Amino acid sequence: MTAEPFVVVGGDAAGLSAASKCKREAPDREVVVFEKGPWVSYAHCGTPYFVKGEIDALTDLLSLSPDEVDERGIDLRREHEVTGIDTSERTVAVRDADGDRRDQPYGDLLVATGGHALTAPVDGTGLPGVFSLHGMDDAAAIRAALEPAGEATVESLGGGDFLDPGVLEPYADWAPPETVAIVGGGYVGVEMAEAFTAHGLDVHLFQRGEHVLGPFGEAVGERVDAELRDRGVTLHLGETVERLVGDERVERLECAGGTALDVDLALVGVGVRPNVGLVADTPVELGDSGAVAVDDYGRTSVDGVYAAGDCAEARHAVTGAFDWVPLGLTANRAGRAIGQTVAGDPKPTGDIAGTAVVKAFDQEAGRTGLVDRERCEAAGFDPVSETVTDSSRSSYYPGAAETVVTLTADRETGRLLGGTVVGTDRAAVRIDTVATALEGDMTVAEVENLDLAYAPPFSPVWDPVLTAAKVLHGSLDD
Amino acid sequence: MTAEPFVVVGGDAAGLSAASKCKREAPDREVVVFEKGPWVSYAHCGTPYFVKGEIDALTDLLSLSPDEVDERGIDLRREHEVTGIDTSERTVAVRDADGDRRDQPYGDLLVATGGHALTAPVDGTGLPGVFSLHGMDDAAAIRAALEPAGEATVESLGGGDFLDPGVLEPYADWAPPETVAIVGGGYVGVEMAEAFTAHGLDVHLFQRGEHVLGPFGEAVGERVDAELRDRGVTLHLGETVERLVGDERVERLECAGGTALDVDLALVGVGVRPNVGLVADTPVELGDSGAVAVDDYGRTSVDGVYAAGDCAEARHAVTGAFDWVPLGLTANRAGRAIGQTVAGDPKPTGDIAGTAVVKAFDQEAGRTGLVDRERCEAAGFDPVSETVTDSSRSSYYPGAAETVVTLTADRETGRLLGGTVVGTDRAAVRIDTVATALEGDMTVAEVENLDLAYAPPFSPVWDPVLTAAKVLHGSLDD
Repeated sequence: MTAEPFVVVGGDAAGLSAASKCKREAPDREVVVFEKGPWVSYAHCGTPYFVKGEIDALTDLLSLSPDEVDERGIDLRREHEVTGIDTSERTVAVRDADGDRRDQPYGDLLVATGGHALTAPVDGTGLPGVFSLHGMDDAAAIRAALEPAGEATVESLGGGDFLDPGVLEPYADWAPPETVAIVGGGYVGVEMAEAFTAHGLDVHLFQRGEHVLGPFGEAVGERVDAELRDRGVTLHLGETVERLVGDERVERLECAGGTALDVDLALVGVGVRPNVGLVADTPVELGDSGAVAVDDYGRTSVDGVYAAGDCAEARHAVTGAFDWVPLGLTANRAGRAIGQTVAGDPKPTGDIAGTAVVKAFDQEAGRTGLVDRERCEAAGFDPVSETVTDSSRSSYYPGAAETVVTLTADRETGRLLGGTVVGTDRAAVRIDTVATALEGDMTVAEVENLDLAYAPPFSPVWDPVLTAAKVLHGSLDD
Repeated sequence: MTAEPFVVVGGDAAGLSAASKCKREAPDREVVVFEKGPWVSYAHCGTPYFVKGEIDALTDLLSLSPDEVDERGIDLRREHEVTGIDTSERTVAVRDADGDRRDQPYGDLLVATGGHALTAPVDGTGLPGVFSLHGMDDAAAIRAALEPAGEATVESLGGGDFLDPGVLEPYADWAPPETVAIVGGGYVGVEMAEAFTAHGLDVHLFQRGEHVLGPFGEAVGERVDAELRDRGVTLHLGETVERLVGDERVERLECAGGTALDVDLALVGVGVRPNVGLVADTPVELGDSGAVAVDDYGRTSVDGVYAAGDCAEARHAVTGAFDWVPLGLTANRAGRAIGQTVAGDPKPTGDIAGTAVVKAFDQEAGRTGLVDRERCEAAGFDPVSETVTDSSRSSYYPGAAETVVTLTADRETGRLLGGTVVGTDRAAVRIDTVATALEGDMTVAEVENLDLAYAPPFSPVWDPVLTAAKVLHGSLDD
């Protein structure tokens, strides 16, 4: 083999899945992965539970250690930042930890640069005591800020060889917070409300919309609002946070309408954006979403250049159009498919349905597909929705709990467009039934007739998803 | 409306679903339901949990009371046995509790006579202390036999106006058992092992095959075997029980190979058969399974005569052929569809996939579709199977438990044929993903690319079902 190397920019889910799969399928191919930080292959989605204290060590969140990556025959370069791509020469410019620069030729290139937490338009997010949660260093810093001054060490946080002690330094002489504000009621906001509450803090969550978890629709939002309140979280709904102010550290939060709160710590989770700076000066095109445009094989507009994970688009199973939904499985799956394609056996990266689940204390919430009227109409559908509240088990069986299912379908064709589920008893896993039906292009009538499992400890005779389909099918016929 | 009545034989899941739907869609239509016993609309599948003591009252298992049936405008006649059908005159012969007989004309007729527990070829099943579990009276009798002599009353068992005190009489002066034998390791056997264990009994389960839960395949069987043993149940696998012997009550169980055991009580759960005696002397045809043959609308070979529930066949989603799989959802769904059809708006009863779940102490097991080689080959497929053991949640998240998934596909087409799931953490609900994929005629490659939900508390990045599909897809390519 004299093919130029397969070069991967980014050592997390998409990047290492691609590198591993390529190396397994084409062991002679040289595979080089550049990661600008110290961490590789870490579980973003696990970080709130590390902050909560439910997971002991940061390194528990690593699915692969650098040694394991080495054992796979991958040339992994941590602390190496790729600063530019020359698509005509097929090289990337790399700067290592010492600041030395070199050009690395590639045969195929995967851009897997991920995303970053948005803080705009909130002012004052640079103040000490204001955090985002995007990556392992953020998680370590927040834990250090919660613990008594100086108690958090690389060792106590399980940082292994990866955590830079400098991340913890600001908290060596830091008074732990009593009141914390969370700005934004998305996944991160809701998960962190649980995490902060576990530390006994007075937790305030500020959300611009009427409910938390906007992308999960109203039925889920209402129930999760109630759960958060039941657990002592103070919700400030319909509030737009304008600025965080303070002298040496954050002291106060101020909203557009005049609401203000004295706080000791703030977590800003108002969104994520794709990291596309690396391709800005290249012919690699972006999609309408602002993420890198790709085809069904993860190929960008430039020959030999692929993109996957939180920096790239993917095709949506319901709309058929390319969309940007940054989620862990999407990144892993697309990376793996691209690794196989690059190894010579082309494989599609797969559709996405925007399937997501989140835990809010004891409530489990799931969503998939299109769940709001605007998005359905924009995609050319005439949406009809129904929400049912049903039992998670036979109503006479101990542990039966309310399960709320919303399904949405197109009036004319009856095609299922999306759905949500929320409840305390195995609710999250039920969204997979809806996601599978979506990807099977099923109509509501077909969903209503699915032969799902029934036994009193696990489901009523008609699973809540079937009951929702039955009711929605009835509405479509009206 | 002068149409002759819609007559239903059997007042349980299929029968009352049909009656209710017909009455709702066509309120002027006369609907008459004949039920030979005192109970209507009861949850068969809940009876093991009543015996266990987890459900207080028998009447908790009723989804509808006779009064509620009346309120729907249905003419319900309990203790009325239909003894014959004259399909040319369109009448049924009915005998009431007093032995009086009359002919009831019908416009449409639904045969929803259910099934019965098989006891053959075990000898001695008529002895006192030998039980089947098929219906509410059986459940009441077993509970009475477990309790101290004379303690069980209609009131203590929550029998309401339905339980005949005569059912409890034999146990008024009855020594409660210490050692019980369960003959048969199907659903009922496994569920009853849990129920008897909860009463502190020495429980022995005899099963002809190598593992319990044969229709769930080996991977499930092995794990449930282990669970039963861990919970103190003595398994006698590969044993064929020949007879139960005793003088005044059962005293001893004897197997073909010579194994014998002194027992105080025996539960025989070796299978169920359709109740088709009512149509034996009519032109209504039976299918190869021995159950009533129907079309996609539940119509039998005789005009105006329908069949649904445990006495009838249904079309299998994988084979496309009609098959007999007596399960609760199938009965409810087919009954409801027939009610709508009879009311003038024809609706298919829906395919079945043989989806089933069962609880065995803390293990949850599910199955759907074709899971054994013989059945796949008989249906013209070349089956390939893979079994994976994966984590139910991110491996670092508390509560993660082993989940074993087996998927089977056709080698040539890659089409998914069936699957099983077993584990302690939300395993049962995961079978619905497989069932939905089956009914969507998906290939393993499509299943591998499903956008299922991921969050650390609920699933690893690749759900165990996806991992199984990934591995199976790999095998198909070999």
